[in-house]
Amino acid sequence: MSVTATTPSKSTPTSRSSDGVLSPVCVVVDCMGGDHGPSVTLPASRAFIDKHPEATLIIVGLPEAIEPARHWPRTTLVAASEVVAMDDAVEVALRRKKDSSMRVAISQLKAVGDKAPVGHVCVSAGNTGALMALARYLLKTIQGIDRPALATVLPNQNDGFTTLLDLGANVDCSAEHLLHFAVMGSALVSAVDGKDRPSVGLLNIGEEVIKGSEVIKKAGELLRQAHDRGLINFYGNVEGNDIFKGTADIVVCDGFVGNVALKTSEGLATMFVSFIKQEFGRNLFTKLAALVAMPVLTHFKNRIDHRRYAGAALLGLRGLVFKTHGSSDKLAFEVALNRAYDAARHRLLDRVHDQIAAALDSLPSAASGKSDSEDVEQKA
Amino acid sequence: MSVTATTPSKSTPTSRSSDGVLSPVCVVVDCMGGDHGPSVTLPASRAFIDKHPEATLIIVGLPEAIEPARHWPRTTLVAASEVVAMDDAVEVALRRKKDSSMRVAISQLKAVGDKAPVGHVCVSAGNTGALMALARYLLKTIQGIDRPALATVLPNQNDGFTTLLDLGANVDCSAEHLLHFAVMGSALVSAVDGKDRPSVGLLNIGEEVIKGSEVIKKAGELLRQAHDRGLINFYGNVEGNDIFKGTADIVVCDGFVGNVALKTSEGLATMFVSFIKQEFGRNLFTKLAALVAMPVLTHFKNRIDHRRYAGAALLGLRGLVFKTHGSSDKLAFEVALNRAYDAARHRLLDRVHDQIAAALDSLPSAASGKSDSEDVEQKA
Repeated sequence: MSVTATTPSKSTPTSRSSDGVLSPVCVVVDCMGGDHGPSVTLPASRAFIDKHPEATLIIVGLPEAIEPARHWPRTTLVAASEVVAMDDAVEVALRRKKDSSMRVAISQLKAVGDKAPVGHVCVSAGNTGALMALARYLLKTIQGIDRPALATVLPNQNDGFTTLLDLGANVDCSAEHLLHFAVMGSALVSAVDGKDRPSVGLLNIGEEVIKGSEVIKKAGELLRQAHDRGLINFYGNVEGNDIFKGTADIVVCDGFVGNVALKTSEGLATMFVSFIKQEFGRNLFTKLAALVAMPVLTHFKNRIDHRRYAGAALLGLRGLVFKTHGSSDKLAFEVALNRAYDAARHRLLDRVHDQIAAALDSLPSAASGKSDSEDVEQKA
Repeated sequence: MSVTATTPSKSTPTSRSSDGVLSPVCVVVDCMGGDHGPSVTLPASRAFIDKHPEATLIIVGLPEAIEPARHWPRTTLVAASEVVAMDDAVEVALRRKKDSSMRVAISQLKAVGDKAPVGHVCVSAGNTGALMALARYLLKTIQGIDRPALATVLPNQNDGFTTLLDLGANVDCSAEHLLHFAVMGSALVSAVDGKDRPSVGLLNIGEEVIKGSEVIKKAGELLRQAHDRGLINFYGNVEGNDIFKGTADIVVCDGFVGNVALKTSEGLATMFVSFIKQEFGRNLFTKLAALVAMPVLTHFKNRIDHRRYAGAALLGLRGLVFKTHGSSDKLAFEVALNRAYDAARHRLLDRVHDQIAAALDSLPSAASGKSDSEDVEQKA
C-alpha cells in the first residue's frame, strides 16, 4: 500500500471532550467494496465529509478509482492494488489478496509499533465472510471475547429501534456466547443511542423460562445472573414478533437464527411492497387512487426503507468495523458512514472493552465452539 | 365422555372414489379450544358443514357449550367434562384433565378394538404444547418417524404458497429429522395442493453447500441423497427471504428456527399494517386519500390476511390433527376446517405413511434427540 495524503488527518490530534466524545473521528472507507464499488462509496463519502466538519476520511482503493477524492477536504487517499470480489472465498481474501482494499482499510485501525492507529472506524460494503475473517485476523478479539458478533438495528412499532445480534457471524453458539452478545449489544446501544441500561431480550420460542433448547435455557440463567449483578438489564425471553414490537432494546440469538430472522423480514418486506404496487397498478381506478395516495405511500415507504437501517456493527474486536449490505446505494452507504461515525465518536470500542472488562471476573468463559471464520483464520 | 348422536356420521360408510378421494370425511372439532372457544368454533363449524354436503362433523365440548349444534345436519355431539386452558402446563393436559375436550376429540381418531376410528381429522385452536403432547401420546408416531412436525403455509410472491416446517414442535433437530420433515412436507403439499414432486429447500444462512452448522451440512447431504433416489425433489439451500419469494414449495428447518421465522413475520406484518394506518390517519388530507384508496387497501389487506393461511398440520402421527391459532376468529377457524377437510379427503395420512414407508429402507433412522413433549409423554 502507498499513502498519498492530501489534507492529512493526522494534523489534528484526536482528543476527548469533557462529555467523553472523541474529536475529530477518522472514518476509513473500503472504496471498492459492495456490488457498486466507487460509484456508490465515493458520492456517499463526499456527502458524509461535507456534512461532518469534525470528521476526517481515509479512502482506500485502487489508485485510479480513488483519484476523484484527491482534493476533498480532510481526506487522505491510501492505495491498494487488489480487490476482494463479492464471491471470493474467505481463503482468497485472507491468504492470496494481501493488498486488497478491504485488508488495507482494516489495517488502518491497527497500531503500528508505538504509533496509535490512524483510523477510528472502518466501513465496507464488501463480502461479509471475508470482512469478518480479515477483521478478526488483523484486529483480534478483545480479552474475554472469543467470537465477534454482527449487530444491526431494525425499526419497531414504538417508533424506535431494536438491535439484533448475532446476524450470522456465529452458527452454533454456546450459552456463554449469548451472554457476551448481550453485554456487547448493551454497550452498542448505550454508546450509539445514548440509552442508559438498555433492556436485553433472549430470543426464544415462548416467554416461559422452561422453553427452548438446553443452550437457550442455560443462556437464560446466565443472563439472569448477569442482571442480578447489574451487568445488563435483562428483560427475559422474547419471541420473534417482539423484535418489531419493540419489547426489548436488544434481542440476542445465535447467528443462524438471527440471519434467518433478518432475511425472512427482508423477504416479507419485499413481498409487501410488491403486493402494494400490484394492487395499485391493477386498473385505471387503482392507478388514480395511487396518485391521490402517493404522498402517504411515499412516507410509508420511507419509514420502512431498509436503507435507513444500514450499517451492522462488528462487535468484540480490538477495532471498530461496520459492514453494510453489498447492494447498498448512496443513501444506504451514507447512513452506514453516519452510524459508524457516531459509534466511534461515542467511543463504542472503549465502552465494549470497559463493559466486558468489568464483567470479566463474573463472566464465565465461553465453551469452545466454532465460528465460520475460525478454520480459515488458522490457515492464514 | 358420552356420545349423544343426532344424525350419526356412521350411517354412511366412508369409501374411496376412483380418483382416490375419501368420502364422506368426518371432521372432529375441539369446540372448547382457543381464546374464544365455542363463540368462534361453533359458527365456523356451522358454516363449514353447510358448505360441505359430503362432510360430517363431530363436535366435542362441555354439554351446555355444544348444545346449540344438536340439530345441525350430519353432526354428532360428544360431551367432555373438562377443558384444557390456554395456559395449562402440558402435564396438566396429559395427566390430570383426562376427560378434556381436546383429549376426547383426538381420541375420535383412534381405532377402538377392531372398530375403525370414527373421525378422519381433528381440529383444535387450543394450547399448542398440550395438543402436540396429547396427539403424540394418544395417536403415536408412524413407523420410521420419531418426531411429529408442525407445518403451515405462508403466501409467496409467486401468488402461491410456501409450506414451512417445523414450527416449534422440535427444538434441537438432527439432520435425519430434517430429512423426515422434507418427506412429510412433500406428502402434505402433493396431497393438499395436488402438486407432483414439490420442491424442498433447506433453510440456511447462505446458498453455498459449505454454509451452516454441522447438522445443516449433514442434512444437506441426506437431502441430496434422497433426491438422487427419487424420494424428494431437493432444490438446495435457501435463505430466509426465499420463504416469501417462493423459491421452493417447501422449506424445512428445525422447530426453533421455524418458530422464530414465523413469529418474526407475524410481528413485521403487524407493524406494517399499523404503520399504514398511522400514515393514512395523520391528517384530513391523508384521511381523504385513505377513502379513495380504500378498495385497493382492503384488497391488499385481504391478500396478506394471516387468517387466510390458518391451520397448521401436525405430521408424522397415526392420525390427522390440525392446529389453528389460539386467537382464531370465525374466518380463521373455518379456513382451518377447510384445510383439514381437504387434507383428509385427499388421504394425507395414507400418503405420508406410504412415502415414509417407501423411504424407510433408505432413510437413516434419526439420532435420538429431544422434543418438547417427550419428557412429559413418558410421565403420562
